[in-house]
Amino acid sequence: MTQQQREALDAIFRNGPLDIGGDPAAQREVFTGMLTSRPLPDDVILTPSVIGGVPVLEIGIDGVDPVGTLVWFHGGFYVLGSPRTSAALASDVARRTGMKVISVDYRLAPEHPYPAALDDAVAVYRAILAAAEGRDLGRLAVVGESAGAGLAAALLIAARDQGLAMPAAGVLFSPYADLTLSGDSMKTKAGVDPSFTAEAIARRAADYVGGADPADPLISPVFADLHGLPPLLIQVGTHELLLEDAIRLADRAAAADVAVSLEVTPGVPHLFQAFAAMLDEGDAALVRVTDFLATAFAQNAS
Amino acid sequence: MTQQQREALDAIFRNGPLDIGGDPAAQREVFTGMLTSRPLPDDVILTPSVIGGVPVLEIGIDGVDPVGTLVWFHGGFYVLGSPRTSAALASDVARRTGMKVISVDYRLAPEHPYPAALDDAVAVYRAILAAAEGRDLGRLAVVGESAGAGLAAALLIAARDQGLAMPAAGVLFSPYADLTLSGDSMKTKAGVDPSFTAEAIARRAADYVGGADPADPLISPVFADLHGLPPLLIQVGTHELLLEDAIRLADRAAAADVAVSLEVTPGVPHLFQAFAAMLDEGDAALVRVTDFLATAFAQNAS
Repeated sequence: MTQQQREALDAIFRNGPLDIGGDPAAQREVFTGMLTSRPLPDDVILTPSVIGGVPVLEIGIDGVDPVGTLVWFHGGFYVLGSPRTSAALASDVARRTGMKVISVDYRLAPEHPYPAALDDAVAVYRAILAAAEGRDLGRLAVVGESAGAGLAAALLIAARDQGLAMPAAGVLFSPYADLTLSGDSMKTKAGVDPSFTAEAIARRAADYVGGADPADPLISPVFADLHGLPPLLIQVGTHELLLEDAIRLADRAAAADVAVSLEVTPGVPHLFQAFAAMLDEGDAALVRVTDFLATAFAQNAS
Repeated sequence: MTQQQREALDAIFRNGPLDIGGDPAAQREVFTGMLTSRPLPDDVILTPSVIGGVPVLEIGIDGVDPVGTLVWFHGGFYVLGSPRTSAALASDVARRTGMKVISVDYRLAPEHPYPAALDDAVAVYRAILAAAEGRDLGRLAVVGESAGAGLAAALLIAARDQGLAMPAAGVLFSPYADLTLSGDSMKTKAGVDPSFTAEAIARRAADYVGGADPADPLISPVFADLHGLPPLLIQVGTHELLLEDAIRLADRAAAADVAVSLEVTPGVPHLFQAFAAMLDEGDAALVRVTDFLATAFAQNAS
């Protein structure tokens, strides 16, 4: 059965209209259309807000008193997407964990290249820490998808360097964490990845990097020293150009004495967790996210 | 609290009498003494037997009707150890999972270099498959510690190449999977690893490799094509010379579309799971082993 599910998902991506290497304005519309075409469940509550001077979308479930906060970073190669385009997955995780999501509407390239997105991430994180005044920090985690996962990793590095308190955990879905595009899987998974090409990603990487060094650890955390980061859960599919980004990030975390779990799911594409409703592997991955966060919060509390 | 536990464990290794680079006969006695000094729980039943012409030790829990079989491979760099030296950990896992352990008493180097250990592993595995006649294969897994984890990986590769049925899963504790000793952690974790030195490991690697090529994928599975292997759980501590063996094995599995979970626990040494009774991280790791096996068996049954 799951073989059929995987094939159906593959076809959705292969036949889809998205060309992430295309004109940003046009592709933003396509991306938003694809990811918001299904209505969210009726009990999902979206509340636009501003935290630390940065627009955010708070995502909660009606009737649920949240037990903690997930600071969320959407995907889209730093050029596409918004909190709304990842609200389906974010609200699914909010429901499973009983937590509130604060999804950051960070500025996008090419209009706003690095470090705009990271500056926004740090501003929101600082404001959340300040508002908490030390309370409930045990139930704070950062979560990112794709470029948002790279951004979440960069946020943790920047926060550590600035002497800020760490959250209890980080969850990185299919991180885009090497904007030099040097991972072997950029070649070995060409054609296997139903969503992207290396050429398209290279165009978007240039948009974000701008005049900076693409190997800067805050742009490409696979080159960072990760000492002091909280426990990380990294999930990735094997049908991904970005497979090696995930593995090298786990490698760097391990080398730096960081608790890291790397979960590789075979035969599934980028951000397969967003398709948990139609894909057994997606559901299983989110079960593990829930378990991981529960364990991290319990350890932090003890 | 766990910081104290980790320091106590580190001191046990640093101050211990084992020198795995020393004379094999003498170190076998030391190794056995260290690992069998604590009595096993009274309800652990050890039953020596022979399967496929190879001596094994069956390990079960009194009163437990086993729900499946773990084919177990002890550690000791292919030179030291026996099913008895890993019976404490094996019986702990048997208890947690409700499964029976068949621990293989494979031949040791230098008296019996490669491929003797692998031949023994394959002979036992073939005999278990034959005895099952297709029954209960869904509840069969292979487990290995250290060199035994490298051997378990080699067994899976050899079994695949010989067209044998795969077990439902593989669990690899701190795999020793690169006998060329080329992992970065052989240098970066020197001194951090309280148990071993690269020089000592090199002596034992030469014993096992004999006249063969240390980069042979059946000696060093980090160089193998892992296509077709069952889901793997790989656990490792960051205070290990062998850290990169685990990471590269996970990398190879991912590249080959194998389901793999890599769990890196910071600040703990080689085979910390054997100290679950005194180390929170060891207990947590074994909880995840139990969950992983339950999931793998459930998927196999569906």
